[in-house]
Amino acid sequence: MTKDRIYLFDTTLRDGQQTPGIDFSVEDKIAIAKMLDDFGIDYVEGGYPGANPTDTEFFASKRTQNASFVAFGMTKRAGISASNDPGLAGLIQASGDAVCLVAKSWDYHVKVALGCSNEENLDSISGSVQAVIEAGKEAMVDCEHFFDGYKNNRDYALACARTAYEAGARWIVLCDTNGGAQPSEIRETIAALIAEGIPGERLGIHAHNDTGQAVANSLAAVEAGVRQIQGTLNGIGERCGNANLVTLIPTLMLKPHFSDRFETGISLEKLAELTSLSHGFDELLNRSPAAQSPYVGASAFATKAGIHASALLKDPRTYEHVPPESVGNFRKVMVSDQGGKSNFINALKRRGIEVGKSDPKLDKLIAIVKEREATGYAYEGADASFELLAHRTLGRVPEFFSVTSFRVMVERRFNAMGQITTVSEAVVKLVVDGQEMMSVAEGHGPVNALDIALRKDLGVYQSEIADLELVDYKVRILNGGTEAITRVLIESADSDGGRWWTVGVSDNIIDASFQALMDSVVFKLMKNRDLAGRIAAE
Amino acid sequence: MTKDRIYLFDTTLRDGQQTPGIDFSVEDKIAIAKMLDDFGIDYVEGGYPGANPTDTEFFASKRTQNASFVAFGMTKRAGISASNDPGLAGLIQASGDAVCLVAKSWDYHVKVALGCSNEENLDSISGSVQAVIEAGKEAMVDCEHFFDGYKNNRDYALACARTAYEAGARWIVLCDTNGGAQPSEIRETIAALIAEGIPGERLGIHAHNDTGQAVANSLAAVEAGVRQIQGTLNGIGERCGNANLVTLIPTLMLKPHFSDRFETGISLEKLAELTSLSHGFDELLNRSPAAQSPYVGASAFATKAGIHASALLKDPRTYEHVPPESVGNFRKVMVSDQGGKSNFINALKRRGIEVGKSDPKLDKLIAIVKEREATGYAYEGADASFELLAHRTLGRVPEFFSVTSFRVMVERRFNAMGQITTVSEAVVKLVVDGQEMMSVAEGHGPVNALDIALRKDLGVYQSEIADLELVDYKVRILNGGTEAITRVLIESADSDGGRWWTVGVSDNIIDASFQALMDSVVFKLMKNRDLAGRIAAE
Repeated sequence: MTKDRIYLFDTTLRDGQQTPGIDFSVEDKIAIAKMLDDFGIDYVEGGYPGANPTDTEFFASKRTQNASFVAFGMTKRAGISASNDPGLAGLIQASGDAVCLVAKSWDYHVKVALGCSNEENLDSISGSVQAVIEAGKEAMVDCEHFFDGYKNNRDYALACARTAYEAGARWIVLCDTNGGAQPSEIRETIAALIAEGIPGERLGIHAHNDTGQAVANSLAAVEAGVRQIQGTLNGIGERCGNANLVTLIPTLMLKPHFSDRFETGISLEKLAELTSLSHGFDELLNRSPAAQSPYVGASAFATKAGIHASALLKDPRTYEHVPPESVGNFRKVMVSDQGGKSNFINALKRRGIEVGKSDPKLDKLIAIVKEREATGYAYEGADASFELLAHRTLGRVPEFFSVTSFRVMVERRFNAMGQITTVSEAVVKLVVDGQEMMSVAEGHGPVNALDIALRKDLGVYQSEIADLELVDYKVRILNGGTEAITRVLIESADSDGGRWWTVGVSDNIIDASFQALMDSVVFKLMKNRDLAGRIAAE
Repeated sequence: MTKDRIYLFDTTLRDGQQTPGIDFSVEDKIAIAKMLDDFGIDYVEGGYPGANPTDTEFFASKRTQNASFVAFGMTKRAGISASNDPGLAGLIQASGDAVCLVAKSWDYHVKVALGCSNEENLDSISGSVQAVIEAGKEAMVDCEHFFDGYKNNRDYALACARTAYEAGARWIVLCDTNGGAQPSEIRETIAALIAEGIPGERLGIHAHNDTGQAVANSLAAVEAGVRQIQGTLNGIGERCGNANLVTLIPTLMLKPHFSDRFETGISLEKLAELTSLSHGFDELLNRSPAAQSPYVGASAFATKAGIHASALLKDPRTYEHVPPESVGNFRKVMVSDQGGKSNFINALKRRGIEVGKSDPKLDKLIAIVKEREATGYAYEGADASFELLAHRTLGRVPEFFSVTSFRVMVERRFNAMGQITTVSEAVVKLVVDGQEMMSVAEGHGPVNALDIALRKDLGVYQSEIADLELVDYKVRILNGGTEAITRVLIESADSDGGRWWTVGVSDNIIDASFQALMDSVVFKLMKNRDLAGRIAAE
């Protein structure tokens, strides 16, 4: 059976740019266009040349190899011909294979926003589409507010779509601009449009996530007959975002409900790079990937529960809706006080630590982890501390150095110039190889001072930790009041690309930080000796 | 026309607890149950009494006033009678109005996970349901893996649902345990079930977000006939999370497609508290609310400068799928700060501070707040600090006392008995009424020591702050590394029942804590003189 082709249209660089807090530079746009192009997306919409200097510069040359490179802009203004509209001329002249023209399809907006007649708007659509085609480019029309327009004036919304179709637009894209349409409404509207003679293979869907259903609306549209989906990487976009292509693509490719009938331009090999595409994009945005993202999140294939975990290990397929490796993600069975014995054995095995099910040391380790988690430790978020604890309980951590004492001081006072100033200073005394060392340092705060002092002179180990870097620091107060228990999580990195989290818990934030800092340094020394760090290096 | 009632079942405290990184204490559970109960949720599932000490303690008494309080657990084991199963007996004896029994409905899992026959599993379902009903409680059955089971062995999945129904279960809840089902599959399966004679008003849906469609799957199930929806606050839950009730509720209540046919137990007045419910829950989890969340996110009604913004200002309704105030959110147009100014005037008015629209001091206050929020202050969560800042900018805060300097020391060392011990000590010098005072105190950590020293001797004001109590303390690191900016929020209370939050921001956590502590004390002195605190007393 031949399958219907679904075309994927990415608007990360145009609608995604409307996300509060996101502003792409030309370099960002070039990098993102390359990621999309390499992955196998059919259309990459680059922005609105002429609307701002960034987009104009970005369209100075074609930025994709395989994907169609699309310029976005408005249809010609009413009352002038297409050839006399400088905005439209700029769009057509910009580098690119296709032009996506946004057109009003709700008569209320034609009146209020454009201030022209319904008939003039239809003329603008047909005239603009023809001008794009005459220039040898592919024309698409984004019908803005299509679903709301259809509810308010069915005939006019239909007329807009029909005008674009008859003028020769390759795609008529139905936009749920305000994002409030429900899947059933989408389905019924598209069925009506197809019944009116506009074929589904010329229709596209552009959904927003204002009711949390941008993905469902896009898939409902595909079921109803459309063959192009517009969306963005990780679902960025105005307000609540656009349809998330990172979620849509694996559903189309891996769920038999869709993959039995449809195909995309993406190969299964490329699909296995989905997680790194998604995380790479977050990296570029300088934000942490969302752990709960469908398919690609760190938690997407993680199991905490004891009752599920043991069955999961017997036969993962019956507890996973798709194989994690198909999207480049992996299975995680987490260490947590809800987990059973098999969780632990599996967790240790992945770290290269073999231990028998009836080994009393295993029971001891489980008891220690449960006891510590009850007092506030969270080993599922502090892999390196868990690994060290396992090694310690099984008796295999060398005593590299020991800290005899530390002292941290924070002083706020007026300085000699009469200004208020706060100074933090830390002193650490430690013994390395029988030799006592003492270091002092100032820092931006007490933890920073302590970190610098601790790593200032580790004697024979000093050169080994030169590339150790502290990259993140999190504090959580576990119950109310300033007398509360404090949990500190620290993320460290080194020049091998390794990253690891350590944890400390105490009623004293400095003490908690110190525990996490110590674990990080010891873990690094273990890792240097290949005694630890299999997971951190993954 | 009478509307069908949709029942809302919250499983934040049970399935939500499966979220990696989330572990509720008994106090957390009590606070969350109260939030859900107050909001008007029909069923609050509290956890699994008997499975762990937290849940057992939580079920020591009934934790809701209006909502049905539900205990979750397994059906009886095969081969013994319901009355001889201690697990089931514990469930039934736990405080609560209803018991939700999880039952396998995929024959493969019956064999692999339970190791019993298909017939024995059906016996466990009917026997357990009957035992719950005989104890005078409402019985529900969660059919685990229902949709996958139905695909693999349709007859057996149906037999499980039918057994629960015929045994008298009030609700048979269809679980998409692995989260991979598509809305069309959900719709067809439920239609078949109803055609087989199990009425929709006895059916519920429990969806997971593994393909980003938990909300859409729940709504598709309602369209197909089910009348109970299970979900969680902010969509927390195992792997990619559960159906997000915060997204589902406004869609059911505000979208005519649903609200014309259905009603919930939540009033429109309560719906206007949805944003604060969602943000309050995130606060409890000590995480920032997601800006792009449907309905309640900070960006959900935000428009960035561009083609939409000017049209939006002409007529907001045509660019907003629902009115933002209906869910307690508000419109943000980022091109104009006019809205900002009237927001400020209203915020000040609520605190009894009158200021004219053209008063230059108002512009100064707005500038200071914007500048400070850009560096990390969050006045939204620190009402008292905002009020003090407003009074200071408008020149009306008496100088009660001034702090000349402070010094905090944390020392970890071996004590005389050879044990490791950590000591925190703080010294504060301050001037009250021209008189210099100096206090020293030890505490559980540096902030606790500083707090005690600061409030140890305030001279003439000392008796006034005797009832001041610090009830909560939160720390958030605003960017990575130990050199990062730290934001501290402190909640204080006094014997009048007043509660207020203050904020401090610095690259030094001690300094940030000191700012928040100072604001708290000054606010208390203002409040005692009726110069501040209208909101705190509310």
